[in-house]
Amino acid sequence: MYHHVKKLMYTVSVGDPDPRFGKMLLEQFGGANGELAAAMQYSVQGLNCDDPGLKDLLMDIGTEELSHLEVIGTLTRMHLKPTKKSREAADADPLIAICGGGGVNLYNSAGSAWTADYLKVTGELDVDLRSNIAAEARAKIVYERLINFCDDAGSKAALQFLMTREITHMKAFMTALNAMEKPPLSVGLIKPSPKIVDQYFNTSTGVGDQGESDLLAPWNEGDDVEGVDAPAFQEFADPQLGTRKAAPIDGPDLTAPTGEARQPMQLDEIGDETKHRRGPREKRAH
Amino acid sequence: MYHHVKKLMYTVSVGDPDPRFGKMLLEQFGGANGELAAAMQYSVQGLNCDDPGLKDLLMDIGTEELSHLEVIGTLTRMHLKPTKKSREAADADPLIAICGGGGVNLYNSAGSAWTADYLKVTGELDVDLRSNIAAEARAKIVYERLINFCDDAGSKAALQFLMTREITHMKAFMTALNAMEKPPLSVGLIKPSPKIVDQYFNTSTGVGDQGESDLLAPWNEGDDVEGVDAPAFQEFADPQLGTRKAAPIDGPDLTAPTGEARQPMQLDEIGDETKHRRGPREKRAH
Amino acid sequence: MYHHVKKLMYTVSVGDPDPRFGKMLLEQFGGANGELAAAMQYSVQGLNCDDPGLKDLLMDIGTEELSHLEVIGTLTRMHLKPTKKSREAADADPLIAICGGGGVNLYNSAGSAWTADYLKVTGELDVDLRSNIAAEARAKIVYERLINFCDDAGSKAALQFLMTREITHMKAFMTALNAMEKPPLSVGLIKPSPKIVDQYFNTSTGVGDQGESDLLAPWNEGDDVEGVDAPAFQEFADPQLGTRKAAPIDGPDLTAPTGEARQPMQLDEIGDETKHRRGPREKRAH
Amino acid sequence: MYHHVKKLMYTVSVGDPDPRFGKMLLEQFGGANGELAAAMQYSVQGLNCDDPGLKDLLMDIGTEELSHLEVIGTLTRMHLKPTKKSREAADADPLIAICGGGGVNLYNSAGSAWTADYLKVTGELDVDLRSNIAAEARAKIVYERLINFCDDAGSKAALQFLMTREITHMKAFMTALNAMEKPPLSVGLIKPSPKIVDQYFNTSTGVGDQGESDLLAPWNEGDDVEGVDAPAFQEFADPQLGTRKAAPIDGPDLTAPTGEARQPMQLDEIGDETKHRRGPREKRAH
Amino acid sequence: MYHHVKKLMYTVSVGDPDPRFGKMLLEQFGGANGELAAAMQYSVQGLNCDDPGLKDLLMDIGTEELSHLEVIGTLTRMHLKPTKKSREAADADPLIAICGGGGVNLYNSAGSAWTADYLKVTGELDVDLRSNIAAEARAKIVYERLINFCDDAGSKAALQFLMTREITHMKAFMTALNAMEKPPLSVGLIKPSPKIVDQYFNTSTGVGDQGESDLLAPWNEGDDVEGVDAPAFQEFADPQLGTRKAAPIDGPDLTAPTGEARQPMQLDEIGDETKHRRGPREKRAH
Amino acid sequence: MYHHVKKLMYTVSVGDPDPRFGKMLLEQFGGANGELAAAMQYSVQGLNCDDPGLKDLLMDIGTEELSHLEVIGTLTRMHLKPTKKSREAADADPLIAICGGGGVNLYNSAGSAWTADYLKVTGELDVDLRSNIAAEARAKIVYERLINFCDDAGSKAALQFLMTREITHMKAFMTALNAMEKPPLSVGLIKPSPKIVDQYFNTSTGVGDQGESDLLAPWNEGDDVEGVDAPAFQEFADPQLGTRKAAPIDGPDLTAPTGEARQPMQLDEIGDETKHRRGPREKRAH
Repeated sequence: MYHHVKKLMYTVSVGDPDPRFGKMLLEQFGGANGELAAAMQYSVQGLNCDDPGLKDLLMDIGTEELSHLEVIGTLTRMHLKPTKKSREAADADPLIAICGGGGVNLYNSAGSAWTADYLKVTGELDVDLRSNIAAEARAKIVYERLINFCDDAGSKAALQFLMTREITHMKAFMTALNAMEKPPLSVGLIKPSPKIVDQYFNTSTGVGDQGESDLLAPWNEGDDVEGVDAPAFQEFADPQLGTRKAAPIDGPDLTAPTGEARQPMQLDEIGDETKHRRGPREKRAH
Repeated sequence: MYHHVKKLMYTVSVGDPDPRFGKMLLEQFGGANGELAAAMQYSVQGLNCDDPGLKDLLMDIGTEELSHLEVIGTLTRMHLKPTKKSREAADADPLIAICGGGGVNLYNSAGSAWTADYLKVTGELDVDLRSNIAAEARAKIVYERLINFCDDAGSKAALQFLMTREITHMKAFMTALNAMEKPPLSVGLIKPSPKIVDQYFNTSTGVGDQGESDLLAPWNEGDDVEGVDAPAFQEFADPQLGTRKAAPIDGPDLTAPTGEARQPMQLDEIGDETKHRRGPREKRAH
Repeated sequence: MYHHVKKLMYTVSVGDPDPRFGKMLLEQFGGANGELAAAMQYSVQGLNCDDPGLKDLLMDIGTEELSHLEVIGTLTRMHLKPTKKSREAADADPLIAICGGGGVNLYNSAGSAWTADYLKVTGELDVDLRSNIAAEARAKIVYERLINFCDDAGSKAALQFLMTREITHMKAFMTALNAMEKPPLSVGLIKPSPKIVDQYFNTSTGVGDQGESDLLAPWNEGDDVEGVDAPAFQEFADPQLGTRKAAPIDGPDLTAPTGEARQPMQLDEIGDETKHRRGPREKRAH
Repeated sequence: MYHHVKKLMYTVSVGDPDPRFGKMLLEQFGGANGELAAAMQYSVQGLNCDDPGLKDLLMDIGTEELSHLEVIGTLTRMHLKPTKKSREAADADPLIAICGGGGVNLYNSAGSAWTADYLKVTGELDVDLRSNIAAEARAKIVYERLINFCDDAGSKAALQFLMTREITHMKAFMTALNAMEKPPLSVGLIKPSPKIVDQYFNTSTGVGDQGESDLLAPWNEGDDVEGVDAPAFQEFADPQLGTRKAAPIDGPDLTAPTGEARQPMQLDEIGDETKHRRGPREKRAH
Repeated sequence: MYHHVKKLMYTVSVGDPDPRFGKMLLEQFGGANGELAAAMQYSVQGLNCDDPGLKDLLMDIGTEELSHLEVIGTLTRMHLKPTKKSREAADADPLIAICGGGGVNLYNSAGSAWTADYLKVTGELDVDLRSNIAAEARAKIVYERLINFCDDAGSKAALQFLMTREITHMKAFMTALNAMEKPPLSVGLIKPSPKIVDQYFNTSTGVGDQGESDLLAPWNEGDDVEGVDAPAFQEFADPQLGTRKAAPIDGPDLTAPTGEARQPMQLDEIGDETKHRRGPREKRAH
Repeated sequence: MYHHVKKLMYTVSVGDPDPRFGKMLLEQFGGANGELAAAMQYSVQGLNCDDPGLKDLLMDIGTEELSHLEVIGTLTRMHLKPTKKSREAADADPLIAICGGGGVNLYNSAGSAWTADYLKVTGELDVDLRSNIAAEARAKIVYERLINFCDDAGSKAALQFLMTREITHMKAFMTALNAMEKPPLSVGLIKPSPKIVDQYFNTSTGVGDQGESDLLAPWNEGDDVEGVDAPAFQEFADPQLGTRKAAPIDGPDLTAPTGEARQPMQLDEIGDETKHRRGPREKRAH
């Protein structure tokens, strides 16, 4: 059961209302990473949750986000209120001015209506916690951007408070995920197929105009990573699964630049290169 | 630039088509956690990315997900194809039968059209990596559920392959996040407010019908966590922010059961308990 | 500020879960006339409201609807939970089964995501109260239909409670509208144009296959109603507005049946009838 | 069957086109309270209606709204036409300029596509009439706001005409609802539970920063209203329903201010106050 | 299977970024007629296609559109990037600025999220080809409008390239449709009803304020067209179908002006005109 | 201005209502290719149209589609009406049963609300005519599928009538497009770039598991078509545009099978083949 107390979790004050900034603030009222999205994501997860401790956590933070919704809504309204009276202000957000009479509604900064498509709720607790950690990180960076575009001291103070709380929640969800003591790549019960799970598919190759190219990095190189170049041009054999066939065959170096430097297209160099593969990534000895 | 090779990343075969299972499979074709969502989330992040290594990663996995989209789409179509011919099959998914002639389209298992509202793209790399880790975890569990509802060996093999790759990607994104070497709670540049960030708000209190109650847990109890009970009924002072006021006052124990067991409502006990309250909330030893 | 108490406003119990009924129940969890729609409509109106009494009312009922959301969500989950385990149950709602693991989310009974497009919030208090009265009436009838399709005693009792509260709210909103003491047709400040406001346009004429025809009724006939037949075939004069021109001219009786009875199409009768036409439309005495 | 006559129901003329005003006007073309929403809501209700008189009413007004759609669309296009030619004008509404070539489409003032989620159609006639009354009230206030932001005489005249007709329709729907002679709180056939229906739940308590507080009002105070304070902290008994249990217990006065004035938090006063509580809530005499 | 090469299909360069133009460009990234819509429409059609030649065509063009998506996305990002840093730029597109940190996402120029509702996929090959021809024509005109609003040479060159390719694709789809050698009005297998198929219903009649009126044209006049005036006021006989009844009867000339010129409303002229009416409609010789 | 006549354009009768078929029928009431989509697409195009003849055409057909909406809506309601009374029928479409009381609303067969995102309106007349031709073709095939799944004679007759009219409209739009006498590939005013427009990009290559492969066809082979194989692996020079660089270089034959047959991957054969490559692509003589 819910109870409402006629007091904001953070008292807001606004000097000069700035309707265009108010429009930006709507992002955290009715936007994809905003407070309603947070409140609903955690509360619905909590409602579905059978673990008492995590349910407690989800309801605690879900309820706090409702209080944040009230704070950000009040702040946003203060900035948008002039849209009711002034045509110039109304041009900043016609939807709020004409349809809402200067009051907020559950739109984002582009006037798109809030949708539950924003929510991530799977009913798998560790998965949901990961979705929540990500959601808090997104909310934090959005608040930071709002603060950066804000001149008003009162608004900044309220946004700083709300931004701070996202970090608090992010930490709580991380702590809860850690407390589950699941191995980091263990999701659900069915095990991934052993060999395939360690293959990194290098599906984007070549060198771009700004010098983009394949780089060696911990995620594509290492003891537990088997690099596979350009799988679209490879044949695979997997004894367990049976349908992807045959060992990778030697082929043209699809990781090489496609620009002028792409000399390998000369016959000899192709042969040469495949023997000597260094380029972006050696190591592998498949 | 993209190139398509007329070969599936995983060869699919289906014994007896099962249109109702095909409808379920649509979840991973045009659903919230499906392959198009993954392909677009990573590819758009990659397009916006200025870091060459992470751009490479995002484009690699984004492109692989396009190949997965083709696999799951082909598999789903095999199961849904009978909806074109048989009224009984058509009843399983009228939208596919009538509007698509038995062919797939970018709907989820309820026939809702795919929407970019599913995507999480902020342009802040560590934040986007967290969104991607969560996205892969969700995709993994959805594949697992599909496998659990599936009787067909060929379909299961394909789903197992796709499920495995989600773990591969999850690991790659985790590795990339670790490689950024950011402190876990550091998002963006603006620091959270020091004191408030450590307060855990216990906004959901009491004891429920199934015995739900507040539990001590690492996220609400510990050296770096200050518990605050029922903030709606508290007053706060924050010297830095200035608007939330005054030290927490003693009040009734809102964490107690509201049912018959709510003994604290007896006058003396309230008084007794409040005397022992410290700061926002003492370490509880229920 | 919101506070949550770990107790449902109405204790729910379910005998045999019925996943197909659970799917129906989603209508009141994440549907157009459901509890989230009610909670958000009133709470957002309350947030925008400058009148202290009405703000109090809107926040009271908005908060109660959050508690209802929790009740209906818990009830719905009980009915949908088997979709996680049983393929047969999962066929009843693949979205809940596959994507939600048997847990509820903010969808309606067709699996469409909740959208703020359901909300009616104008910031004009009497208008908003009318929207709320209508919303409560819709919620009431939806609960009644659910009760009619329900066999489970525990579910029925909970639905009866929630249905009852809608009437309570409907009454409160009606009382509040009456207390504003506005004339019933007075909305906003700009007066409607005097003559035009009293004209009833009879834009649908003829006699249908099931005998549909124009009927005299209080809304198209009376001292303060001037009937205008078939305005598309009339010319109007309005001295105040200046653009709709000239007194109605005599024309064929477009209100007559178009079927075999359409005798007026015989030349003489047209002439005859048009002679008797007066003003826009004479009082009819069919 | 529909017939179209090549004449607007109200002749529109525009002096200087104002693309930003045109964008606002879209609200009544393809917006939530606009003419298509009205036309479709009434026409679909009419199509479903088995009562010949009300069907006649619904088709009459539904058809008139189609004519209004044509008027507002023509007016809106006149204001938006310059977006095709001038970059400055195009900046006012890029979607209309780039995608529509300066022509209107069924978007609202924020460029969101019209959706049937705007419609309220239940098939219960008195309920639908209430939805229609509210819809007309909303349309009226939206037209009023447009008039207030408009400088062009021709546009204002057309808007005044359309606004006037909304009042005409509101009156017709009210007359029709009255003619049904249903008791005002009677919706459908199932009766609400007698005692619970008269309880007003005071779920929002305390005193806010702007002095918001609980106020006595006809909807929460009176012979047929039983006030219940802070139900989340109460226990209920309802002999008929059986699950909400037991007489309200004495508790802290949650209706008191939470601010500095919250003296009751002093032990004695809590005790004192709770002694005076009666039933769920005594008549307050603040 | 897809492979990505780190090179744009067309190298883009931008002189001075123009965030408002960037917002317009989003129309072709995540808009209704944009590159993702094209890529998905053709690729999904290709996935469903059993004809090897057409499947090849659909996959070729579908894949090329993915490369276009990358080009337009890169170009759009260059124009929108300043929205991250400058408040003035951010006002041009708050959603991109606040939510995306200056990076693109799959929105259109009004910030609406891309939706698969944009796609037209029926699984009937000739029908899908017609949808594709129309889609390419729309994409072409949208690019043309963008070019017309663009001052930057590099942007124009890229847009010219992309626009050109739409014509290439339009031609390819037209060639493919011709190669199917289907009669132009033959869709599917069920034949239309012979007589009714040749009737042109003149459902919009009269003369408008700008002189709009019925005009003779090849589509309503000719050897294989039977004109039917104002069918809402006619009775039909169709021996094959049986339900529309009886030969058309003479009636008033509803094609005549409704304005002052509507002389037929004078009794004699109505009579006069109706005498000359034949069948549903005589060949008119205005 | 619109006028409604209380008579269906086609009298519908239904023997035994079939709620699951009624659900399918919704596709043509509120679905993507249904009658409202048609009515709105043409009517909005007509409203924007400055050419009197085409405006007449668009309004004629747009208005007729409104009459079709009424026919299909009435037919659909007859089939769905039992969902109000019977739980078994209600399971066929819970949304219609619970939310609509057995009455239709503007949903498709999956219960998704109608959206203006279905519409294609560009304000370029020849483009809009192409969109309309495609729309009619889609509507035709959807009606055909409904007829194929229908057992009821009365329903079939009505669907046959509506299906027939789509062909009538398709013909009218084709006639109108021809009457514009525009060259088939001429859209708008800006000419495509001459050389690039004739290049067919073979972006999908290889041989698939079902033997999919590149096929010679009129759209990729001919006097006015220059084939370009695997552009992602090519370099281009375009003197006019300046940014795509340099003559195509010889490379591996990406059009060859990637399977066992992929002999070119043997080093010598690559060399051999590349020697024979000319320009972007020689005429193939497979």
